[in-house]
Amino acid sequence: MRLTAAEIAEFLSGTLHGDANASVDDVCSLSQSHEGKISFLSDSRNVKELEQTAASIVLLPEQCDISGLTSNIKTFIEVADPKSAIFELLAWFREHHNFHLSGIDPTAIVDETAVIGQGVTVGPYARIAAGCKIGDNCEIHGGVSLAPSVVLGNNVILHPNTVIYGGCQIGERVIIHAGAVIGADGFGYEFTQGTYHKIQHYGVVVIEDDVEIGACTTIDRGMIDNTIIHRGTKIDNLVMVAHNCDIGPNNILVSQVGFAGSITTGENCRFGGHVGIADHVNVGKNSSLIAKAGVFRDIPEGAVMGGAPALPIDEQKRIWMAQMKLPEMRQTVRKLQKQVTAIEKQISNKQEQKKAA
Amino acid sequence: MRLTAAEIAEFLSGTLHGDANASVDDVCSLSQSHEGKISFLSDSRNVKELEQTAASIVLLPEQCDISGLTSNIKTFIEVADPKSAIFELLAWFREHHNFHLSGIDPTAIVDETAVIGQGVTVGPYARIAAGCKIGDNCEIHGGVSLAPSVVLGNNVILHPNTVIYGGCQIGERVIIHAGAVIGADGFGYEFTQGTYHKIQHYGVVVIEDDVEIGACTTIDRGMIDNTIIHRGTKIDNLVMVAHNCDIGPNNILVSQVGFAGSITTGENCRFGGHVGIADHVNVGKNSSLIAKAGVFRDIPEGAVMGGAPALPIDEQKRIWMAQMKLPEMRQTVRKLQKQVTAIEKQISNKQEQKKAA
Amino acid sequence: MRLTAAEIAEFLSGTLHGDANASVDDVCSLSQSHEGKISFLSDSRNVKELEQTAASIVLLPEQCDISGLTSNIKTFIEVADPKSAIFELLAWFREHHNFHLSGIDPTAIVDETAVIGQGVTVGPYARIAAGCKIGDNCEIHGGVSLAPSVVLGNNVILHPNTVIYGGCQIGERVIIHAGAVIGADGFGYEFTQGTYHKIQHYGVVVIEDDVEIGACTTIDRGMIDNTIIHRGTKIDNLVMVAHNCDIGPNNILVSQVGFAGSITTGENCRFGGHVGIADHVNVGKNSSLIAKAGVFRDIPEGAVMGGAPALPIDEQKRIWMAQMKLPEMRQTVRKLQKQVTAIEKQISNKQEQKKAA
Repeated sequence: MRLTAAEIAEFLSGTLHGDANASVDDVCSLSQSHEGKISFLSDSRNVKELEQTAASIVLLPEQCDISGLTSNIKTFIEVADPKSAIFELLAWFREHHNFHLSGIDPTAIVDETAVIGQGVTVGPYARIAAGCKIGDNCEIHGGVSLAPSVVLGNNVILHPNTVIYGGCQIGERVIIHAGAVIGADGFGYEFTQGTYHKIQHYGVVVIEDDVEIGACTTIDRGMIDNTIIHRGTKIDNLVMVAHNCDIGPNNILVSQVGFAGSITTGENCRFGGHVGIADHVNVGKNSSLIAKAGVFRDIPEGAVMGGAPALPIDEQKRIWMAQMKLPEMRQTVRKLQKQVTAIEKQISNKQEQKKAA
Repeated sequence: MRLTAAEIAEFLSGTLHGDANASVDDVCSLSQSHEGKISFLSDSRNVKELEQTAASIVLLPEQCDISGLTSNIKTFIEVADPKSAIFELLAWFREHHNFHLSGIDPTAIVDETAVIGQGVTVGPYARIAAGCKIGDNCEIHGGVSLAPSVVLGNNVILHPNTVIYGGCQIGERVIIHAGAVIGADGFGYEFTQGTYHKIQHYGVVVIEDDVEIGACTTIDRGMIDNTIIHRGTKIDNLVMVAHNCDIGPNNILVSQVGFAGSITTGENCRFGGHVGIADHVNVGKNSSLIAKAGVFRDIPEGAVMGGAPALPIDEQKRIWMAQMKLPEMRQTVRKLQKQVTAIEKQISNKQEQKKAA
Repeated sequence: MRLTAAEIAEFLSGTLHGDANASVDDVCSLSQSHEGKISFLSDSRNVKELEQTAASIVLLPEQCDISGLTSNIKTFIEVADPKSAIFELLAWFREHHNFHLSGIDPTAIVDETAVIGQGVTVGPYARIAAGCKIGDNCEIHGGVSLAPSVVLGNNVILHPNTVIYGGCQIGERVIIHAGAVIGADGFGYEFTQGTYHKIQHYGVVVIEDDVEIGACTTIDRGMIDNTIIHRGTKIDNLVMVAHNCDIGPNNILVSQVGFAGSITTGENCRFGGHVGIADHVNVGKNSSLIAKAGVFRDIPEGAVMGGAPALPIDEQKRIWMAQMKLPEMRQTVRKLQKQVTAIEKQISNKQEQKKAA
């Protein structure tokens, strides 16, 4: 679907300069631009970035001075906020990437005891088991499995093939990406008579409002009490949160983070990729763990830590710097040993000479 | 569903003290207790923990002395083993979280050449391909995919949307959690003429009795011989076991462990979260790798190791301690260098003075 | 299905020695051999490996001298290339492990606006949404979800339960294993007024020809521009590639590698298991990152690096060696301090004695 510069200017309430009939069929960034696409400059201080663009139309901030440019952009549109504007265009041009579910697909299996809110859509081959409660306007995609007694708040989106185990409670506006598994059994065993015996896990996973959970992430159920993800926390793909964790509000867990059992975190914590935390650790609010950190002890409020075992990042950096000099330092120490031994010998020789004298 | 203290005491064959009509609708731990719930104290030495509980009924060990308590718990039930008893109650109160499959769902696709045991349940939209053999009392949940010639022993549980590739053999009482993938192709290529050419993988995955496998864990098939997980081994979520590994009995693999190809482990090994092991490494029995360890060489029997590259944990701890002092030590060495240079100068000056004299 | 030595020799155009009626029903390696199986020796220099084999028939390279053997292998077949030959037999003996889809399963849901090529097979309960374009001879297994406007080239294989989000473009001969998720939203938020606000991601994932992607691997879509995996790159299981990465041709990403956003890599790079790379890092072509490396800065062409933070591997190894000597070195430095202090004291005493004198 093509739009002309005139149509776009009108749609965005912008001011058109150049060829009103120039037309585009998609959006691109300035750095990866193509003819027949529309791009944008978000900050007028970076006006030089326009020099190389191949885009046919560019959105500019109002009163952006392009007089010094030698490039051949002929058509541009001034708008108040080019970045917001380009996202409006993206929503329009990429609209055909979206599912358009409507109502409950006839192949979806919804148990007769499930309670389904207004405006809920359910994709093909999804399964909603006995006793589930689905809030209004939820979007449950194809192949999703909701075990008995799962509760979803309003406006929840479950992407294809996600699995939620029995009794888990999901808040409002929660988004869960494809392949994520919520509420599998905690990893707990008793070792008796030479083998591991499974400890049943009866707690559930509680996910509060406005949480987003990435593809193939797994959050295990608690043993007696629940595993809890508090409001606003965002979890990336392939993250593990083990049984009975209590993850505070507005946390960020980047991909492949691993949380062992019964960890607590305060609000606004950040965990970089591959961070691992041992069981029962308490992480103070506003703290930040650098990618690949390994945490074996409690983390104080506001700490910024890295390395494994994790140390305050300034200290850790000094150690990393010193380690780079370590082989050299080893040489130095060896040399010092020789020097000192030589000095000691000299002194002792002298003393013996004196004595002899 | 509520139960009264009297009903619970009778159900557990316990001795009731307090209000026989006190009623509860769920279980909680002492640390996260609520009115209207029942909790438990497992060890009478921790009787102080009862002080703060809000639970309406508490299970106590027999002859637990609560005379010194100032709290207002009025209703408690003495039982021989409060922890076992609370798990009985959990099974009762949380029963509505369980699937109740019965027989083979009409939407399940079971190939006519598949052999299905007695008492097998198959959930909606599961697929059981040609030549599969399913043991008695298996529970195959919705959306599961069994490729041709998969064999399941008796009493296997496959949670929703698990995928098992062709020919894999699963023992008795094995539990596989949602999203796990058993038997995908090993990651092996030949690099010729500037590109990688896929090596077909014809081995299968063999999983012995009493193994449990976590959500979104992947175990790849072997090339010619099989990948084997021996009896009783427990594998957490998001673990990778590559082609041709031979994982011994009663091993513990915590979340996000990664095993490269052709690793062998003895019995009773333990691998903490994020542990990674290079291909062809042999891990001796009863050894233990601390979370985040990176292993590039064989591990002797009974070793406890950590760090990357992994070292015996006592040695590793000494190194970690020393590293923390490394920046300080660098200063010390620099100072020593200056001191020694100064001494050497003094001595040489003196010798020159003597010569001059 | 059993084959006799005579049948196999004919099938492989090999030269039979021994019992033409010896029969086998499967293949094994020499190291894990069994009676009733056929094995192979790929290199005649390793002829000693035949001593212990229990295989009933063995494939040998032509003119392999087995005169010195004391073992009782009676039946062997000379072929030009035993390894290729054994793979031909494996394909034959293990054929019953393969799916045999034909055409579009009646339970598959294919939107009427989707364009399906010649010879495409679609398994049960797969979903192909509006606007998808599926190339010739694609194999789409059961439970797969293709969102609107997904494009597959010819000869693509999608294993069961894989999920591809809207608009993603997959090249020719691409293989994607079970549970992989292609095109989930990038992990990007704006933090304003105390909460994280989701940034919509409108880019897609572009996967070029001859790429293979492992089980439960996740590759996120770009924000405006696309995430790109160039031709011939092979990605193992449980790998994370974040939004807007541009992964060069013929790269190898081993299991559990994590790439943050907007990383670029050149051709022929290799990333060992658990390697993690920070956002916006550029990795030069032909470079190699050892398992568990953590990369926070650009990597030059052809570099071989390891450790976290990553350093050139030779340097890193020297540091690792030095670290092992660190506790000992600390003792040495302490001893040196004492020695130097003692020397200084001696000298100053002497000087004072002189002065006094």
